[in-house]
Amino acid sequence: MAKGIETRERIISVSAQLFNRVGYHGCSLSDIMKATNLKKGGIYNHFTNKDEIALEAFDYNFKGILKSFRKRLDHDVTPTQKINSIVEIYAKLINVPAFEAGCPIFNTAVNASNSHPALKNKAIAAIDKLKKYIEIKIEEGIATGEFKDTADKKAIPAMIIMTMEGALIMSRVSDSLSIDIAIDGLKTYLKEKLFK
Amino acid sequence: MAKGIETRERIISVSAQLFNRVGYHGCSLSDIMKATNLKKGGIYNHFTNKDEIALEAFDYNFKGILKSFRKRLDHDVTPTQKINSIVEIYAKLINVPAFEAGCPIFNTAVNASNSHPALKNKAIAAIDKLKKYIEIKIEEGIATGEFKDTADKKAIPAMIIMTMEGALIMSRVSDSLSIDIAIDGLKTYLKEKLFK
Repeated sequence: MAKGIETRERIISVSAQLFNRVGYHGCSLSDIMKATNLKKGGIYNHFTNKDEIALEAFDYNFKGILKSFRKRLDHDVTPTQKINSIVEIYAKLINVPAFEAGCPIFNTAVNASNSHPALKNKAIAAIDKLKKYIEIKIEEGIATGEFKDTADKKAIPAMIIMTMEGALIMSRVSDSLSIDIAIDGLKTYLKEKLFK
Repeated sequence: MAKGIETRERIISVSAQLFNRVGYHGCSLSDIMKATNLKKGGIYNHFTNKDEIALEAFDYNFKGILKSFRKRLDHDVTPTQKINSIVEIYAKLINVPAFEAGCPIFNTAVNASNSHPALKNKAIAAIDKLKKYIEIKIEEGIATGEFKDTADKKAIPAMIIMTMEGALIMSRVSDSLSIDIAIDGLKTYLKEKLFK
């Protein structure tokens, strides 16, 4: 029984990296078999089809992102520290070995956008959750008087996400588009729009 | 002769949209034959292989982007107007029918990044050209005294490109990530870092 759960988890974690690297359509069941060193039956013991694996693999990846955020934010005290941490951790997702192929939210959203509604919806839900997460930190800062009352709780999280996703993907393409420029740019924006 | 040039141009313009929509690997020679309503021979009359078409199609798309910029910038007088136009035109690329599948620089850079060095290099060269184009407008504004002397001529173009590419792609994924938020955010950044 315990071994079954272990195998199930291994299938998910291995597939999570695989799907992130090659996308839903680029990853076949035999790729998963090869990467997990399991036979078809060993996989079908735990999942009914590739779809089910892909959806759980996305959840697994998204949990990994949230964990990266929480790990750092647990040590932060002020809302300003927390917002700065979000920007910095977001930027450093590219250094997390599991995300060497880029941000899974982005990759899933773009790969699945015209071809796999269920996966696309997962990506959109993840974006909404991330936005909400940032929004709550903004509300905390407004409540403590550390942030401007005029801060736009909807626009600021959206700007952070669009800029960081753009920077994460573009910095992979050209060395001249560095993630540090995006961090600095976002902080300039936040200084104007959020921080007092 | 004239008809031959016309056919050649039609193959490029039709393929340019096709490659932008489905990527290099998603587009076969028979897709191009179908879209142009030409037989294999009719295409091989003008091109030696799919590669040659893809590379010329990218150039065609990039020229289209530069044309969108120049068309508007020709009417601008001050460097501030020009930089604001670049941000706004960049954002509106998504409304250009030929780019309904997104920014061709971005799409090519991401699709070709691990699989087609020649195409990837074209995308990188296009990014460099776009950066240089913005850099020159910044230099003009510093020269006229309209922009801050401290303006970072390398970082500002990179920030514009990363943010706009991120916004163009993410706004296709979720309605809550609107391109207008990115325009507004970038202008806040530019007000701090560039405009006097």
